[in-house]
Amino acid sequence: MAMKTLSAKNAAALDKDLMSIGAFSIDQLMELAGLSVSQAGSHFIHPLACFHPKLHLLRPPYFISVFRIHPPSRGRRILVACGPGNNGGDGLVAARHLWHYGYKPTIYYPKQSKNDLYQRLTMQLKNLSVPFTEDFPKAIKEADHIIDAIFGFSFSGEVREPFPAVITSLQETHLPVTSVDAPSSWNIEDGPPPSGPGASFMPGALVSLTAPKPLVKFFKGRHFVGGRFVSPDIAQKYDLDLPEYEGIDQVVEVGSDEQKL
Amino acid sequence: MAMKTLSAKNAAALDKDLMSIGAFSIDQLMELAGLSVSQAGSHFIHPLACFHPKLHLLRPPYFISVFRIHPPSRGRRILVACGPGNNGGDGLVAARHLWHYGYKPTIYYPKQSKNDLYQRLTMQLKNLSVPFTEDFPKAIKEADHIIDAIFGFSFSGEVREPFPAVITSLQETHLPVTSVDAPSSWNIEDGPPPSGPGASFMPGALVSLTAPKPLVKFFKGRHFVGGRFVSPDIAQKYDLDLPEYEGIDQVVEVGSDEQKL
Repeated sequence: MAMKTLSAKNAAALDKDLMSIGAFSIDQLMELAGLSVSQAGSHFIHPLACFHPKLHLLRPPYFISVFRIHPPSRGRRILVACGPGNNGGDGLVAARHLWHYGYKPTIYYPKQSKNDLYQRLTMQLKNLSVPFTEDFPKAIKEADHIIDAIFGFSFSGEVREPFPAVITSLQETHLPVTSVDAPSSWNIEDGPPPSGPGASFMPGALVSLTAPKPLVKFFKGRHFVGGRFVSPDIAQKYDLDLPEYEGIDQVVEVGSDEQKL
Repeated sequence: MAMKTLSAKNAAALDKDLMSIGAFSIDQLMELAGLSVSQAGSHFIHPLACFHPKLHLLRPPYFISVFRIHPPSRGRRILVACGPGNNGGDGLVAARHLWHYGYKPTIYYPKQSKNDLYQRLTMQLKNLSVPFTEDFPKAIKEADHIIDAIFGFSFSGEVREPFPAVITSLQETHLPVTSVDAPSSWNIEDGPPPSGPGASFMPGALVSLTAPKPLVKFFKGRHFVGGRFVSPDIAQKYDLDLPEYEGIDQVVEVGSDEQKL
């Protein structure tokens, strides 16, 4: 049985439904989406796991589902690359939560929106003295981990400036990269572009928000699903198999095992 | 050294600061406040604890800070009593998250606000088929746990109808009660009222949002602090000692040990 996915068109329709019949504001949804990303991005592993090397095999109900493979003690510096739209907004929210978890985020956000919400999310980071940089090559040298929040499910067509070089860097870096909703530059239905920036981009982790998109069939890496706010009615309307979150987690690792979704 | 607290006046000023210089929207703040309450309300205990009776003594960094003393398997029915203002809004958000955690919330919300945000929070619960009741005595008989989100830091003066009987019920029940920010009917500075409803009300747990209020010195029970969004600047302005949250938790138990804050 193939993993059920949500097309780009249906992802946009579902978002509209959440904000109309679902009665959510975009502030709420982005807060919860960014929180999901931060929980995956921090890769929380329960400290008891160090006592038992196979403890991570004891999944539900014996283990929480988000692992801290990069605890702050092993590298706090997280570079968050934000695009101009909602994907970038999710990245801004995630960066704020990561700061509160003890990480040291730096934000690359070259195309800042004039939209009120994004301006406020930016100010919330500035109030925490989180640095913003315009020099991606320098920033990547000073990072331990990267969050790719450049393009999400509404991306199509060509990667515009200044992002081609950024995507090439993400493709070439040896640092761990966590992508939000989609590896940036990938087509939502068809996966990696046939050539150019991103053609061989394969992030180590992907956080699908609300539900996986068709591109996941081209993704090889750790796969999380976040966005614990979908009602059964909406799940049914879009024929989604929502994952089973653990306890109070806002994100769940679904891996490549199709049965898990 | 006494626990640092935030007066009712300063709590109101801090809230204003969060939404002006802090650049937060009320939607964001209420979402995070309600999430904190839900994490305390679900009393998350790591399932491994069942293997070792003293595991809960292995606190930081060996244990997560919110205990599930009432896991869903031991009673999923949570009655959430919501007042007419922001405290009630926090309760509505908490109820939604608790539903997603697998609990069965029922909402008592007799004075529903016409404010757009509260109407949307209500609709979000109705979309999950969460029942609303107007019969508190009946609802309390069918509950395993109660969240008291009736009055918060802006409460003063007398308890108005229909809440006196509700507060008397909360005072008399043997069910566990978790209060949001303040045991309802308590004066924010002076604690329990000298007589009338609430004079001997002592909930089992209290979740102080942003920072404890002066009433905590009259409180005997499990004390949590939530609201992981305060910047160092604001903490300094209001002379707060923010608690040290664990990992990705949105809430932390501070107990009665003054050194912990």
